[in-house]
Amino acid sequence: MKLFAVPDLPEIEPGDDIASLIDERVDLEPSDVVCVASTIVSKAEGRLADLSAFPAGPRAREIAANLEDATGEPKDPRFAQAVLEESVGLLIESPFLLTETRFGHVTVNAGIDRSNVPGHDLLLLPRHPSASAEEIAGGLDADRVIVTDTCGRPFRHGQRGVAIGWAGMPASRDWRGEHDRTGRELGVTVQNVIDELAAASNLLAGEGAGGTPVVVVRGFEFGDHEGSDEHFREIEGDLVRQALREWNDGS
Amino acid sequence: MKLFAVPDLPEIEPGDDIASLIDERVDLEPSDVVCVASTIVSKAEGRLADLSAFPAGPRAREIAANLEDATGEPKDPRFAQAVLEESVGLLIESPFLLTETRFGHVTVNAGIDRSNVPGHDLLLLPRHPSASAEEIAGGLDADRVIVTDTCGRPFRHGQRGVAIGWAGMPASRDWRGEHDRTGRELGVTVQNVIDELAAASNLLAGEGAGGTPVVVVRGFEFGDHEGSDEHFREIEGDLVRQALREWNDGS
Repeated sequence: MKLFAVPDLPEIEPGDDIASLIDERVDLEPSDVVCVASTIVSKAEGRLADLSAFPAGPRAREIAANLEDATGEPKDPRFAQAVLEESVGLLIESPFLLTETRFGHVTVNAGIDRSNVPGHDLLLLPRHPSASAEEIAGGLDADRVIVTDTCGRPFRHGQRGVAIGWAGMPASRDWRGEHDRTGRELGVTVQNVIDELAAASNLLAGEGAGGTPVVVVRGFEFGDHEGSDEHFREIEGDLVRQALREWNDGS
Repeated sequence: MKLFAVPDLPEIEPGDDIASLIDERVDLEPSDVVCVASTIVSKAEGRLADLSAFPAGPRAREIAANLEDATGEPKDPRFAQAVLEESVGLLIESPFLLTETRFGHVTVNAGIDRSNVPGHDLLLLPRHPSASAEEIAGGLDADRVIVTDTCGRPFRHGQRGVAIGWAGMPASRDWRGEHDRTGRELGVTVQNVIDELAAASNLLAGEGAGGTPVVVVRGFEFGDHEGSDEHFREIEGDLVRQALREWNDGS
């Protein structure tokens, strides 16, 4: 398995055709997995915004008053308003905003980015990342596309790459019913390969001035397993989220 | 960047020298990252055990009574005893055991494996995975070693590879103080690269009869960043864990 970054991509502008920009720069094989950072998908889809577009309502002002920005000042309530508009629920309100986006992704600040946004204040996540992945895949010689994000997580320090949208492949390998070397049924059941591919691609993608937002994974074999498209947990099956909601409501 | 599995490793037995077994099969380069599944580290370190070694105390019996095994029967209280002995704390007690291991890893059942354990009932995680990584690295031509596990996580379906021990490299790239293309300071601050490498290696490692427990990552460049060895969160900085503990104590 081999990973390489697509070289020399320009700064992406609203309306750009990401698939064409990739196709002009690399010779893809049909089985390649193309991992595309959500930042450029958002830019191509015009998901740039300014704070002035989010006049703060009372709920946003209340939330922002309990949050600090990097300099210790209260957060701009218009930012809290933008986060609310991009979310269907808040799991934690203070000291940071842990949100569930409209497409099911649990992340801080609804994934709204305030760095790397030329000429604007905010970069919102794509509206439907799997639809974006589908559209990009339609314009490529490769069938499999993952739209990636980076985010933190409970229990472990640091951010890592994750998949927020995918097309042309299942999200997971389902090992249920398969057996170990000694014939015992496997305890590990479902392996989320799109998150693992996104994490792998993030090792090359980087975040800074030398950012390379598209990484090709060549030679990944899904193998002879059942596939599953379960990816974001619903709250019904997510005990941690249930506990957080109860805890937040009670605090 | 390129990943390949070390071919033809034998079933690992207690006392086996993993570094030698790897060295005999591949020509490593000094900058390679060698990702070793914790299952074989545990086997080499003799971390196999039987349920009979864990006579259940009252706490284990109480916990087991609230848990079901795969067939809907109450869990074996000796299994709960083993989990308790491998843990410093329980975050969730029912319907599954979410634990913190002695070395800081938050995972279900203290990471105790019941599949792929020839001749025994249980496979415990290595006692000190970073010490294990250090020891393996000492016997290899490559300097960087990661001991990997697979585990689930909140908010997202499926398991993915994670690092539980590491040697020869920092856990994370610290981007703080670095700037984006437009000169704005980056919002994303710390990238946990050892978890991303573990996830990448798990794409090749697999779990089943064709398991390949050692994967070499060639060509990963840490780059010109500060490094950090923060990996497992302490409860003080982990709001989700605090909430879970309060929720578990109150339920």
